[in-house]
Amino acid sequence: MENYPIDKRNKVVRIPKRGAYDKETINAILDASFLCHLGFSVNGQPYVIPTSYGRKGDSIYLHGASTSRMMVNLDEGIPVCLTVTHFDGLVLARSAFHHSMNYRSAVVFGTAKKVEGEEKMEGLKIISEQILEGRWDESRAPKPIEMKATTVLRLDIDQASAKIRTGPPGDDKEDYELDIWAGVVPAKMVWGEPEADPLLKEGVDLANSVKRLDE
Amino acid sequence: MENYPIDKRNKVVRIPKRGAYDKETINAILDASFLCHLGFSVNGQPYVIPTSYGRKGDSIYLHGASTSRMMVNLDEGIPVCLTVTHFDGLVLARSAFHHSMNYRSAVVFGTAKKVEGEEKMEGLKIISEQILEGRWDESRAPKPIEMKATTVLRLDIDQASAKIRTGPPGDDKEDYELDIWAGVVPAKMVWGEPEADPLLKEGVDLANSVKRLDE
Repeated sequence: MENYPIDKRNKVVRIPKRGAYDKETINAILDASFLCHLGFSVNGQPYVIPTSYGRKGDSIYLHGASTSRMMVNLDEGIPVCLTVTHFDGLVLARSAFHHSMNYRSAVVFGTAKKVEGEEKMEGLKIISEQILEGRWDESRAPKPIEMKATTVLRLDIDQASAKIRTGPPGDDKEDYELDIWAGVVPAKMVWGEPEADPLLKEGVDLANSVKRLDE
Repeated sequence: MENYPIDKRNKVVRIPKRGAYDKETINAILDASFLCHLGFSVNGQPYVIPTSYGRKGDSIYLHGASTSRMMVNLDEGIPVCLTVTHFDGLVLARSAFHHSMNYRSAVVFGTAKKVEGEEKMEGLKIISEQILEGRWDESRAPKPIEMKATTVLRLDIDQASAKIRTGPPGDDKEDYELDIWAGVVPAKMVWGEPEADPLLKEGVDLANSVKRLDE
């Protein structure tokens, strides 16, 4: 297993046994989502913005309107922190103190750079495919004017860490005798029934990319 | 409707019609979750950490181990950005360019202060009740040694904004004639079947707080 370098920045301080630094673990968490929270600082003021992403190798592609605050600031090569969190359930202990959550999170550090030309189009496809596999080829491709209105950034991962909690609660020994229910309430994200655009052209079938979501 | 003050920091730059600054809208987004992404900067390096929270009025309570990096840094009164995002669905347009997501997000700015004594206990209860209503009174209350190991912070909201997208895709006029399926694939978080702790004392019923999740 290949690890990202570990130092003060990405070391899991609190409950270190939940931490991991290997690319396999981190990539699995990144690949199971397409929505991250991106943090950056402007004049000392932090911003945390939800945005979509796509991973390729040790890089993450991000996109946005060329005019957006996030894109304008990030392109200046400032350090960013990109975090992806899967909430997997509530962990109910007998004591209030030992309540917890089951989760998988990845925290990624690096700087982002604007990409152009072929890589810009490839970056958009990587993001699109991470969100919904197969949708890119179903869609009408971007026109030059749309490409101009869009900024694509590549974040090369310098460091990263994962933090994972699974399993039942852990209580203090003497609390196991209490008449308090304890356990896990699992949670997950599910897709609902697709809702066709009211303006959908007559006779157009549901997209294959959407059909595959049920598989 | 009471608005938070608007300036450069919290103004929704990109697609301003999706932005809102009134407390009713922002609080509804905050109250529909208990998991935020908290951003802060240490020596210019941003960190984005997933953590639970509870809201009361114009303040948000946060907690963590007294030894955690987040708690130690935040207590120094540094500016933070707290973001809550509900992902409500994929918005599939005919053009790749007009693909989007339905979501509700709130971005909150302020500084956090450590609280002690009665407010510290109250803060923990507010967080607990936001995560799972009724669980606080079901649980074994915190002991002094547990309170000492825990830091509770109150983040007074200085400014905030909400950003919301709902509804079907919007495509360019000429694309509506394309034979491409378009619409929304809704998404939501659901609870699974509660899993009792393997060490649960015999004869203990499922907690009422958990039973109510299905209502």
